[in-house]
Amino acid sequence: MDKQTRKAAFVNQQALRESMDRAGLDVLVATSPESTSYLSGCYIQTQLVVRDRLALVVVPREGAETYIVCNIEEPLARSVGWIDDVHTYVEFADSPIDALAQVLEEKGLDKGRVAIEVKFCTVAYYRELQERLPGATLVPADPILDQARALKTPAEIERLWKAAALAEEAVYTAWKRSHPGDTEKDVADRMIEEMMKRGADRVDHISLGCGENTLMLRRPPGPKKLEPGDLFYSDFGVVYHGFWSDIARMAVVGQPSQLQRDLYKTLREVQRATIARMKPGVEARELFNFAKQHYTKRGVDLVFPHIGHGMPQTRGHEDPRIQPFDETPLEPNMLIAIEPSFRVGKERYHIEDLVLVTDNEPRILSDWWNTEELFVFE
Amino acid sequence: MDKQTRKAAFVNQQALRESMDRAGLDVLVATSPESTSYLSGCYIQTQLVVRDRLALVVVPREGAETYIVCNIEEPLARSVGWIDDVHTYVEFADSPIDALAQVLEEKGLDKGRVAIEVKFCTVAYYRELQERLPGATLVPADPILDQARALKTPAEIERLWKAAALAEEAVYTAWKRSHPGDTEKDVADRMIEEMMKRGADRVDHISLGCGENTLMLRRPPGPKKLEPGDLFYSDFGVVYHGFWSDIARMAVVGQPSQLQRDLYKTLREVQRATIARMKPGVEARELFNFAKQHYTKRGVDLVFPHIGHGMPQTRGHEDPRIQPFDETPLEPNMLIAIEPSFRVGKERYHIEDLVLVTDNEPRILSDWWNTEELFVFE
Repeated sequence: MDKQTRKAAFVNQQALRESMDRAGLDVLVATSPESTSYLSGCYIQTQLVVRDRLALVVVPREGAETYIVCNIEEPLARSVGWIDDVHTYVEFADSPIDALAQVLEEKGLDKGRVAIEVKFCTVAYYRELQERLPGATLVPADPILDQARALKTPAEIERLWKAAALAEEAVYTAWKRSHPGDTEKDVADRMIEEMMKRGADRVDHISLGCGENTLMLRRPPGPKKLEPGDLFYSDFGVVYHGFWSDIARMAVVGQPSQLQRDLYKTLREVQRATIARMKPGVEARELFNFAKQHYTKRGVDLVFPHIGHGMPQTRGHEDPRIQPFDETPLEPNMLIAIEPSFRVGKERYHIEDLVLVTDNEPRILSDWWNTEELFVFE
Repeated sequence: MDKQTRKAAFVNQQALRESMDRAGLDVLVATSPESTSYLSGCYIQTQLVVRDRLALVVVPREGAETYIVCNIEEPLARSVGWIDDVHTYVEFADSPIDALAQVLEEKGLDKGRVAIEVKFCTVAYYRELQERLPGATLVPADPILDQARALKTPAEIERLWKAAALAEEAVYTAWKRSHPGDTEKDVADRMIEEMMKRGADRVDHISLGCGENTLMLRRPPGPKKLEPGDLFYSDFGVVYHGFWSDIARMAVVGQPSQLQRDLYKTLREVQRATIARMKPGVEARELFNFAKQHYTKRGVDLVFPHIGHGMPQTRGHEDPRIQPFDETPLEPNMLIAIEPSFRVGKERYHIEDLVLVTDNEPRILSDWWNTEELFVFE
């Protein structure tokens, strides 16, 4: 796909501009990795890791976008991204906020109503922008960007689905190659190998553990051996052609006990029943409350503060959040990871699947793996 | 090592408290991944990826630290971290800033001089803190934390050195297994395999490319084949027992041309000459200017805005930054990655090594690999 075709396929430009009009904005400035990669088609890893290396996308109400990047990221921005107007600054010598102010001045937007994404903007950069543009009215851009990203295009859905399918198949294959007596690290290494072999750009995350370690998120896999009777859990994701996945699966070492079978059955039934309710108009919090009530009825406690989240293209969590205070009504083309989780004693039960909200029935996209029964390491 | 031994080995508590005294602080609040993991001994990955899941470390002038984490990270914080006083909040239901205010109130510090790390604190959270603690005087904690982290303890140096050695050996072995006609992705996959096989917790980053792709930072390795004559570059790092590495190496596919030999020789000579000047009292900017002048003399342009950076335990860049405006004088026990880089035509030359500043001669820790000549894929 050429750049303009990619842009049209991956961003709902019209909806974005309409939201800007409704909010009476002159210009919108994206600052977060998820929003700048969404709007530019280019993911700049150092934006997260080297935090003064800001990357910004400026979207005026009318006319072309500008992509502001540190000069050492210019070749990547031009080669991968679809924004033609790339404005660079030199780290340490120039201030990225000054570069932003220059771009806004050139476009005659420095006295306008400027929406800036605040949730990734540090207090120091925000103050600098206020001082540099005294004539501008700064308002948060977050609601508009969060809403635009939450509704996926068909091309986005396809990419996110493919990243999920790759991860599922890789992990299933790695687990088939693993046996009692292997260490957590052995299993993790095989998962990575199978992910890369299937074409992953890179591994995003592997959280993995057996027994008590099922309680710990993203702890490095260690020397603990898989012992018969151990419960086993992994939350994992790859990046494939720039798109991310986020899935969790469970297993048991040797044959499961009756209690393990029953608890897993509870987990999966409540997850599936929650998913069945994911229809347009249902509020995010209703799903949370539904899962919580069902767990309570069955005598287990939902200890997590949420049971799911919208799926960004790159990584992390985005709206809607399936938590008790989120009143967002579901809409078709939202893509949501559903991960109810409960703790019993020193073990945690947790699976995670990728669900597409449609006009009719919700569709589970991460369906490569039949999760009716616990996977058995044997 | 038990928790108190680890804490004593990895944090220079006395220097930190003395800096706090000099600045007249009642309490210091760390907010960034690098500072909270430094002070707690626990790295919480979701702190970076799920940004409203704040993790905070509260260091009062006297008495014990408090570690504030989202409740779903509590098992990890208690099992891996060394701070006994763990205070949790429930995501969505509670505000992490409110949890911080409660902790400060309980300690009688809510009307004091509170230093907060601002470079990771968003404008929304900062405003919330100002409103929640109207009697407190907020000042930036960044200089104190940056300075404390910049001076490594012997245990930190050993861990960072081991992570570097692991990465060097893994990559050298992977490159030995690679040949003309392999793709960039083949080489990257082997690098990952060799890193994990040697015990890496995970791969932190692999930036890799041949020919024109040497210009692009952290672009996913693609289907481009290694063709005879291609210059090849990779910047890579692992996490090993929680500690990070950051190294870059170069190669050529088949025998190098005379020009490639000469340019590589320039690169390495300037890097080594710069390293030789890394003695206590020398300012960071002097190193930058020295490398820049030498490149200019030899007719190539230093295009990067810096030629190195301090090495955090976890990832990213920290002080000192070897850039034209950093006046920090070098001190013994600073550990600095030195990576001068230049572009000639459509190719970039770049190696990166880990250097320890001592009372006497600087010491290159990433010395497993003899970099006198370009590595040859054959």
